[in-house]
Amino acid sequence: MHRAHGRNKREENNLMKAEIISIGSEILRGQIIDTNANFIAKKLVELGIDLEHISVVSDNPESLLSTLKLALQRADLIITTGGLGPTEDDITYQAIARALNLKLIKYPEAEENLKRILEKINKAISPSNLKQVYLPEGAKIIINQYGTAPAMILEKDNKIICSFPGVPHEMKNLIEENLILYLKEKFPPSIIKKSKILKITGLGESSVNELIRDYTNKQSNFSFGIYANPEDIQVQITTQALTEKETDKLLQSSVNQLTKILGNYIYGSDDKTLEEVVGKLLKTKKLTVAVAESCTGGMLGEMITRIPGSSEYFQGGVISYSAKVKEDLLKVPLEVIKKYGEVSKEVAQLMAEGTRRCCHSDIGISITGIAGPGGATEKKKVGLVYMALSDGKKTINQKHQLFGNRQLIRLRTSRRALNMLRMYLMGK
Amino acid sequence: MHRAHGRNKREENNLMKAEIISIGSEILRGQIIDTNANFIAKKLVELGIDLEHISVVSDNPESLLSTLKLALQRADLIITTGGLGPTEDDITYQAIARALNLKLIKYPEAEENLKRILEKINKAISPSNLKQVYLPEGAKIIINQYGTAPAMILEKDNKIICSFPGVPHEMKNLIEENLILYLKEKFPPSIIKKSKILKITGLGESSVNELIRDYTNKQSNFSFGIYANPEDIQVQITTQALTEKETDKLLQSSVNQLTKILGNYIYGSDDKTLEEVVGKLLKTKKLTVAVAESCTGGMLGEMITRIPGSSEYFQGGVISYSAKVKEDLLKVPLEVIKKYGEVSKEVAQLMAEGTRRCCHSDIGISITGIAGPGGATEKKKVGLVYMALSDGKKTINQKHQLFGNRQLIRLRTSRRALNMLRMYLMGK
Repeated sequence: MHRAHGRNKREENNLMKAEIISIGSEILRGQIIDTNANFIAKKLVELGIDLEHISVVSDNPESLLSTLKLALQRADLIITTGGLGPTEDDITYQAIARALNLKLIKYPEAEENLKRILEKINKAISPSNLKQVYLPEGAKIIINQYGTAPAMILEKDNKIICSFPGVPHEMKNLIEENLILYLKEKFPPSIIKKSKILKITGLGESSVNELIRDYTNKQSNFSFGIYANPEDIQVQITTQALTEKETDKLLQSSVNQLTKILGNYIYGSDDKTLEEVVGKLLKTKKLTVAVAESCTGGMLGEMITRIPGSSEYFQGGVISYSAKVKEDLLKVPLEVIKKYGEVSKEVAQLMAEGTRRCCHSDIGISITGIAGPGGATEKKKVGLVYMALSDGKKTINQKHQLFGNRQLIRLRTSRRALNMLRMYLMGK
Repeated sequence: MHRAHGRNKREENNLMKAEIISIGSEILRGQIIDTNANFIAKKLVELGIDLEHISVVSDNPESLLSTLKLALQRADLIITTGGLGPTEDDITYQAIARALNLKLIKYPEAEENLKRILEKINKAISPSNLKQVYLPEGAKIIINQYGTAPAMILEKDNKIICSFPGVPHEMKNLIEENLILYLKEKFPPSIIKKSKILKITGLGESSVNELIRDYTNKQSNFSFGIYANPEDIQVQITTQALTEKETDKLLQSSVNQLTKILGNYIYGSDDKTLEEVVGKLLKTKKLTVAVAESCTGGMLGEMITRIPGSSEYFQGGVISYSAKVKEDLLKVPLEVIKKYGEVSKEVAQLMAEGTRRCCHSDIGISITGIAGPGGATEKKKVGLVYMALSDGKKTINQKHQLFGNRQLIRLRTSRRALNMLRMYLMGK
């Protein structure tokens, strides 16, 4: 769940108002989640254009027509997605033509593209396909090399209507390659707005909030959002200025301040992932790692190996779900397991040393815990996790009491173990 | 990406029209995806209520007011989410009161609940919190035991307006515990509509489509949808009748027909997961399993251990990312690796046998492949995967050439391996 804190200033600088119309009964029937609108909303923020409404509407002609007419009243820029396919339900261009009193005319370049696309998949043009080459007159057509439905940008009476296919990857590519450039040229932003996300691990949302509150409350040039994800906490900084240079400078000054406050809890920014950061550190330091996982069942290894080329630093590991595997492969003595229990500091430590040895790595890292819902005792509750890191000279231990359901506890455990490794590597 | 096939009949039976209003600038700024609307849309389908519009609107008072007024014109049932918090931006109840010409009045039961909730987290009531206990007069309040914002159902002039918090888990619980019952009682559906999802693995979307097309095209009592997910293919059957019994009977007849066609490719229905099905089979047959994973890096083990109580049948395994681990722990001879390569049928087979032996399980299951983007050769392309299953008597092998990016190939590989195990267990 996400939560935004801080100021949300309404930008008065840009008077253009936008509306997204998502067309498709599948959304209203709950069969798909409208992620297209979210993609476009993000792009509009970057362009400094104010999105005032998102309307989801079915492919019923009257519903769509009245939704379009309303949007023409309240918005300057209307972006539709969906309803451009070959079937009877696909009526977006007809509805736009009706709303604007325009004829539909045939676009030969759309027909050519349609033929090309269908040839590639060895299909003949059907009469229903031919419908797709008719667009409202005056439309600037956008040829869709990813599918059969052409997109368009149409200017009329100081309004701009753009239509894109509902298939997410087609919509995304066509918008990035066409609409963004068009809008940037047409409305050179008077203000350059930018955001940066700082990614934090090892601290909870409220701790992050408490640490940065004194700083963020004093700032008037920035807005801040704190988002809590299962795998990390993200702080989003947004600012704006008259030039790109000035914006970058402002943004960097806030990043510097927050980095001073949060220090090593920040593992990266924007699209950087924790496993990527850890991988880079291992590569730089020319060190290899192996895992020993109990309650996470392989999740830590799976995360590390998401990174292409991780074989350079990841040897492998042991999923020691049973005590016998701990004993046989990791050489954790049965007496230790019996004395301290499988979920204990002592066993975690021996697991880390064991996997380091048997997988021939520089570093061994281990996890043992109770993911629940079963397995808890009076003294050891669900969410109790021990982890250890051994480098052959010393062993580091951590104990955590985590919350959430089984899968969340496992996810949080794996992230903590990765972060333990990151902190160790940064100290080296 | 999802795709729906088949008939989408508009239900004429129910004349009630619904609209969802999602209130929150975070959605319009692209910071969060509006998953709440999707949850409610699904519930309305189950209730046979026609959802005609979803409107996303900011917390600007005028925008919200005009959106509410429009909804009152075009819908009979309006469900809002968001805007019930303690901050200045939270103005849903004020806007509803304005739209309906109602006063806001204090609800003592809301104040009591607020005190109780804040006491629990050791917080005093702030003046901004107190705003939360004022609701439009005539509202049937719904006490929120999960948070500070009360929900409500309000009937006026043949319209129903309901408001729920934007926090997803609060919204979901309050809707399931209150709104669903209210709507079922108020509008006993004249028609009982039900869906069932059949989950399929081991076949692609187009193969499923081809296999069932002859059957589905002939049906007029059902609508069918085929959805392609990274981890499986789902066929959704929807039907309706005058009584629950009749609907269940119809639905079952179609399930039977499709099961005849798709046979063992169907691994379960509705919320059932593949790892759950496999776990149940292992438990029933009193067999244990261990894994040996190369390119999936622990993903198969992670999936198996998602199921509580999996320690009953999962021993653990070896993540043999390096050749040395394959050799040392799984006892795959170095000559075999050198001769056939790490990604080969021979190595997969020895890995399965090796993990079965060293983890003391009845069954060993192995994966070795090229997840990419690097590591391909002239003969062995990215996506080539070998997997094997050994039970000590015989070894089964599979070779797959999979598509997608690195993570998708790994995901599909793990699902295929799980399915190989399912098919083996069903044959036993």
